[in-house]
Amino acid sequence: MNKKNLEKNDLNLHALFIGDKAENGQLYKEMLINLVDEHLGWRQNYMPQDRPVITPQEKNSEKYIKTVNHMNEVMNEISARMRTYSIPWHTAGRYWGHMNTETLMPSILAYNFAMLWNGNNVAYESSPATSQMEEEVGYEFADLMSYKNGWGHIVADGSLANLEGLWYARNIKSLPLAMKEVAPELVEGKSEWELLNMPTKEIVDLTEKAGEKFDDIKSNSARSGRNLRKLGKWLVPQTKHYSWLKSADIIGIGLDQVVSVPVDDSYRMDIDELEKIVRQLASDDIPILGVVGVVGSTEEGAIDSIDKIVNLREKLMMEGIYYYIHVDAAYGGYGRSIFLDEDNEFIPYENLEEVHKEYGVFTENKKYITKEVYDAYKAIELTESVTIDPHKMGYIPYSAGGIVIKDIRMREVISYFATYVFEKGAEVPALLGAYILEGSKAGATAVAVWAAHHVLPLNISGYGKLIGASIEGALRFYDFLNQQSFKVGDKEIEVHSLVRPDFNMVDYVFKEKGNNDLVEMNKLNHAFYEQASYVAENIYNNEFITSHTDFAISDYGNSPLKFVEDLGFSEEEWYRAGKVTILRAAVLTPYMNEQENFEKYVPKIQAAMQDKLRNL
Amino acid sequence: MNKKNLEKNDLNLHALFIGDKAENGQLYKEMLINLVDEHLGWRQNYMPQDRPVITPQEKNSEKYIKTVNHMNEVMNEISARMRTYSIPWHTAGRYWGHMNTETLMPSILAYNFAMLWNGNNVAYESSPATSQMEEEVGYEFADLMSYKNGWGHIVADGSLANLEGLWYARNIKSLPLAMKEVAPELVEGKSEWELLNMPTKEIVDLTEKAGEKFDDIKSNSARSGRNLRKLGKWLVPQTKHYSWLKSADIIGIGLDQVVSVPVDDSYRMDIDELEKIVRQLASDDIPILGVVGVVGSTEEGAIDSIDKIVNLREKLMMEGIYYYIHVDAAYGGYGRSIFLDEDNEFIPYENLEEVHKEYGVFTENKKYITKEVYDAYKAIELTESVTIDPHKMGYIPYSAGGIVIKDIRMREVISYFATYVFEKGAEVPALLGAYILEGSKAGATAVAVWAAHHVLPLNISGYGKLIGASIEGALRFYDFLNQQSFKVGDKEIEVHSLVRPDFNMVDYVFKEKGNNDLVEMNKLNHAFYEQASYVAENIYNNEFITSHTDFAISDYGNSPLKFVEDLGFSEEEWYRAGKVTILRAAVLTPYMNEQENFEKYVPKIQAAMQDKLRNL
Repeated sequence: MNKKNLEKNDLNLHALFIGDKAENGQLYKEMLINLVDEHLGWRQNYMPQDRPVITPQEKNSEKYIKTVNHMNEVMNEISARMRTYSIPWHTAGRYWGHMNTETLMPSILAYNFAMLWNGNNVAYESSPATSQMEEEVGYEFADLMSYKNGWGHIVADGSLANLEGLWYARNIKSLPLAMKEVAPELVEGKSEWELLNMPTKEIVDLTEKAGEKFDDIKSNSARSGRNLRKLGKWLVPQTKHYSWLKSADIIGIGLDQVVSVPVDDSYRMDIDELEKIVRQLASDDIPILGVVGVVGSTEEGAIDSIDKIVNLREKLMMEGIYYYIHVDAAYGGYGRSIFLDEDNEFIPYENLEEVHKEYGVFTENKKYITKEVYDAYKAIELTESVTIDPHKMGYIPYSAGGIVIKDIRMREVISYFATYVFEKGAEVPALLGAYILEGSKAGATAVAVWAAHHVLPLNISGYGKLIGASIEGALRFYDFLNQQSFKVGDKEIEVHSLVRPDFNMVDYVFKEKGNNDLVEMNKLNHAFYEQASYVAENIYNNEFITSHTDFAISDYGNSPLKFVEDLGFSEEEWYRAGKVTILRAAVLTPYMNEQENFEKYVPKIQAAMQDKLRNL
Repeated sequence: MNKKNLEKNDLNLHALFIGDKAENGQLYKEMLINLVDEHLGWRQNYMPQDRPVITPQEKNSEKYIKTVNHMNEVMNEISARMRTYSIPWHTAGRYWGHMNTETLMPSILAYNFAMLWNGNNVAYESSPATSQMEEEVGYEFADLMSYKNGWGHIVADGSLANLEGLWYARNIKSLPLAMKEVAPELVEGKSEWELLNMPTKEIVDLTEKAGEKFDDIKSNSARSGRNLRKLGKWLVPQTKHYSWLKSADIIGIGLDQVVSVPVDDSYRMDIDELEKIVRQLASDDIPILGVVGVVGSTEEGAIDSIDKIVNLREKLMMEGIYYYIHVDAAYGGYGRSIFLDEDNEFIPYENLEEVHKEYGVFTENKKYITKEVYDAYKAIELTESVTIDPHKMGYIPYSAGGIVIKDIRMREVISYFATYVFEKGAEVPALLGAYILEGSKAGATAVAVWAAHHVLPLNISGYGKLIGASIEGALRFYDFLNQQSFKVGDKEIEVHSLVRPDFNMVDYVFKEKGNNDLVEMNKLNHAFYEQASYVAENIYNNEFITSHTDFAISDYGNSPLKFVEDLGFSEEEWYRAGKVTILRAAVLTPYMNEQENFEKYVPKIQAAMQDKLRNL
């Protein structure tokens, strides 16, 4: 495709959504019908000499009519259920909960269209068009991470992408042990400790050097089932998503090998603690399989300091310690587009505000991006693999996850081959299924992601603006919350936010002024959540919707203590309650960046909050 | 939904597809637009007091117009690519290759519609409507397998469902060892061999009996990473799909633990060989983690004798040997609907032909279903878990796989919990993601499957007829092939089919009469494949399309020898060539069951074959 992007200030984000009030509904229908007609014409004109098998007579038969009626009845049931029990996250300003909002119209259109062909990207043969697009999307992911020799692909979701990352780490880490057995000349003179602390690049270089012995080495790697317990610990942030436990279980290293690293009171991984843990393990002769840095944690949107995780590794390498780094940027991955210029180069920090202004990324002149967050994003290019979910900050419908690896050669470490798959020396793998965790997969997903990436390039000229709108909306909501208080009878109820968001997630609590009972505050917030979610039933008539979470000592240790103490609770009270219940708003709506729009919703949100608090 | 199925003879299958010549294209568009309008109205009427954020002024702005133009340009590129490089498997009678054909219109509509809400079935909170439908689909899967206390869910694809099955087997098998450590009273007096040979039901009963100790037992199960090597061997048919190797790698038991069981010359698992292998392993004190039976093999559509695998287990249990059975019915799973009456009871074999006649499952009176195949399907109810892919014989678009477990309590063995997920004592899991391999997943997939299951119930009144059409079409193609021969210059080229299909897949070869050179025959068939696939380029103008595979000694042993010898090649020639190249037709088209339709395509197929052979 010829690169015909819009000029830097010609993008109107609102043209890309159906709209909270279906403002672009007619446009959507027109484009949809055009595409459907193109597909129908394609069917009609494939071998026009063939007569239709479904005849006019059949179409007027009683059976046909009854069947169509029956099908319509089923669709009516579906429509009633969908409209009664779905969450209205398309609203411009009333949904402040999970990682959802409207999705991009071009992606919906692309999916609907491509689905009519139903390509299967497991093999090129089944889907030349869509396999090619997935390959392009994979390289776009790699560019987004500044992986110069990288590769990526679409995954059904982030949990699976994380599992695939762990699979990479496990199998790569085990290769030197296999080399020692099968091709000892490759790793001559290395101790077992050294073998288990070889940098990934060095290992991958050796797989090339191994030549014909590589298959044999692979057979003796972790894929054989051996040496799994030797590979060491898998370090994840304390706020660990349950998917990391599940992954360690599935991949066979086991939960015993998962070590959680405390987070600080910004809910980012505490790098001093990380260093302590690594050194302690090393002094016990236990290697580190890998470290997971999270870019956009599920509950806080916190961004771990990837730069510091990388720097620590640099330092420890001098002492013979090495760990694989996987970045779980399922949530925040697309955020990297805000730092890339139109040539996909990472913008120097000192130019960032100016470039953002030039491209109209934010509507106001404020400091939206901190240096910490900038440094974290920049350092991703130095890690081994990244999870990135188009169905989160890519504004693409479910299910679309993704993974990116730094070095395309890594994929040979986990690959399989089947007989029926190799034809032509195509650049696109003949059997993608042999290089990934999954098998059959919808070609339509690739088209949906491709469409979005081509309407909105993964840099400051495209996605950067959408991400910017989301961050700006989040900060508006954050500022708003910090000013609220409500009168309910003779009680005064204040709102407190957890931390200034690293990204676009705002956590907050309602607190009765003067209350010293944390258990009571938790009850209040939980009760508010029940009023502001599907739990209250009749979700379609709910005027403000949010989500919630618990920060419990068992998961978070004392990271929330500072917040709790700042609210006026004693340390004793914290231990007594054992947790703090938090309300949580992932702010994806693309409309709340504009002051004018936001202001219209302020009184509505206030009234809805007031109303719910009164109902408790 | 009130059960308002069609009367037994009122179903017209052709009303349910867009049609090979888009005969139902207008119907599709009408229904689509109705649904889209219902969605748009829903958006408009959520909080009608809120003004649209996208204003008429904005919609007439230069930026908006430029952005829409840009989006249209991207859609044009997509349309051109899709129409140029997609496979025309919608054709009624020219595509005889992979497991593809048109998909069900109600499923496409349901997906397109539900996608506009973009529910995420990972958690009930995000998708009340679609989570409920997935739960219902899961129970429908269980009914289909006659699992009285079963449960199931949608999976992204069959490879992942197989992996999940292996995860179940691994974790369940390890529980008795964990009980021995944590709650020895539960397994008092049992030797390690006995612990590793406990029937699944007995283990699951004990997990209930364990009460509060269950969590501790789980922590000490295979999920800890311990004991994986003790659990024994995973037995798969010799024709093993590469996904089984991948699964064993990922799940950490390793390829070393995979044992392949030879197939007989019908390409079904050889049960005598299975017994030999199991006894040999047992005599070496090696337990059997589990046995995989395949219902619809990828390359042959062969159906393993699940009944015999079950019977062998019954026999061996008397000797203290037990194995878990997972049925990989990714391909053939929906086929079980041809055996269930409208109350979902398995129809007695002696009544089967009569019932099929009553429901018009086949257009002719022939013996379509052999007793072997019947017995294999029936016995599925006695196994532990089944993979079933809606996106194969469910005629539902990608990606939609599925898994079913015999006993809903099994899911507790692999479950995880996260803090933010439990609200209400709902029957639907609050966090489905805690019970399955995946995380986020499209609610739309569940709606697509639900729509199909409600238009076509999973028994003789619905899917049974569609599967019947497919099987009948396959047998027509099989009969046709066996009568063909072609003159090319002075050569006579005959067609030979591999075996009578168990299900709906027809494998065949072209052979030059009098040729004794197997390498030559392989070349001929490979060259034919290249003419009849995307390899020839300009796929839209290709008049006959098929797929191919290689049966190599390394994978198949001597199972193909009988076929090769019947063709007139010597045993020596077989060893020299090392493989036989096969053409392969999965017959899913729902139109070729009718003699009249098929006859129209016969001369077209003959001409195309003749033409391609001439071009070689």
